[in-house]
Amino acid sequence: MRRDDPDTFQLPDTVTLPAQARTVIAALEPLLTEQRRARIEQVIAARSSAVVAVLDGLIDPHNVSAVLRSADAFGVLDVHLIDRPEPFLAAPRISQGADRWVSVVTHNSVEACVRALRARGHRIFVAAVDGVLGPEALAREPAPAIVFGNEHAGVSAELRALADGTYAIPMRGFVQSLNVSVAAAITLHAAMQGRPGNLDAQATEELRARYCLLSVPQAEAIVAEYLRRQQR
Amino acid sequence: MRRDDPDTFQLPDTVTLPAQARTVIAALEPLLTEQRRARIEQVIAARSSAVVAVLDGLIDPHNVSAVLRSADAFGVLDVHLIDRPEPFLAAPRISQGADRWVSVVTHNSVEACVRALRARGHRIFVAAVDGVLGPEALAREPAPAIVFGNEHAGVSAELRALADGTYAIPMRGFVQSLNVSVAAAITLHAAMQGRPGNLDAQATEELRARYCLLSVPQAEAIVAEYLRRQQR
Repeated sequence: MRRDDPDTFQLPDTVTLPAQARTVIAALEPLLTEQRRARIEQVIAARSSAVVAVLDGLIDPHNVSAVLRSADAFGVLDVHLIDRPEPFLAAPRISQGADRWVSVVTHNSVEACVRALRARGHRIFVAAVDGVLGPEALAREPAPAIVFGNEHAGVSAELRALADGTYAIPMRGFVQSLNVSVAAAITLHAAMQGRPGNLDAQATEELRARYCLLSVPQAEAIVAEYLRRQQR
Repeated sequence: MRRDDPDTFQLPDTVTLPAQARTVIAALEPLLTEQRRARIEQVIAARSSAVVAVLDGLIDPHNVSAVLRSADAFGVLDVHLIDRPEPFLAAPRISQGADRWVSVVTHNSVEACVRALRARGHRIFVAAVDGVLGPEALAREPAPAIVFGNEHAGVSAELRALADGTYAIPMRGFVQSLNVSVAAAITLHAAMQGRPGNLDAQATEELRARYCLLSVPQAEAIVAEYLRRQQR
């Protein structure tokens, strides 16, 4: 997909809540259908912060969107992006809205990204032709941050040097590589096997507030009005 | 990807050998480098006819090519196509030549495809929202033919009615479906887990002949010349 396609859009960081999570929920949750509320609770209960996807310089908006869609589908809470000179673009037809449901965290350097991941207890795994771990082995890592690299250059040398380990999807045909969106889907699917949701009460409440915000039209205005009434 | 993109091409059926397999090999194998010969043997030894991919009316050339690439990567020997009014198109940038390394078999009706698969001992599994088997369970099926359906309409009603079972990739996010190329990659990867190559002597020889034919420039002329010399 071309980056100048009019359908692409710049991927925003995760929305900031306009008020405390409990206030946002109190204002918006009563406006949801019972079905929608149940769906939100079901997704939150299955979300895990243990596995993180890291996108290191992906260029094709199709691929960025496809990785976000896989992350959402398999219960990955956070996707981290490492900024390159070009902003990350996504393709709505491919992401199917997944860019809203996954928490996107942007870092302006490899080093900042690695520091943030380590502070949260993650070990960092990069794809490599002679990668040590198969996708199934990543399911046994307590908290893997799995890096998907640029379509042409792969993972940056800087990130490779800082990684804790390597992984590879075993291949047995003539083709030497998989498309990055396909590789990411297989890897995230495998890495999430057997992992239940793991969010604590605070993370659950924040995510509930965000999903309420994303589920109600003109949610910010409604929250502002709710706050005004409370202050009377 | 648009079907009128000048980069697409119509997917041909697998090449017919211009002579007996042993003749093709005798004429061409001496022209291969040692490295190429070793690669061909390695790929053939890992090929399995147990798992078959069936494409039922896929439209996007990107998706067709991506499925072929996954089939090659994970050792799937045969991909079956069910003809629709539109011919199957593939996208060379995505398939990376995989369309040549995988055996493509086209059927002009659902019924003909099902008959051919059953005659080879396959059981047929179609994707369904409430599918019974997960991808890992397909690895325990002796000879699953796994159907990937049209991007919009899914698997045709006719094929669903004839299938032996259903499968689904468990999802736990908001997005309700995966892109078909991603779903196919996860499913074929899982279904091929733990399956070694299984080709008998005859199938091995035919595949060796085909791969020789595809590895040597102007192979058909060389084989013709070889035959002429033999007949002198």
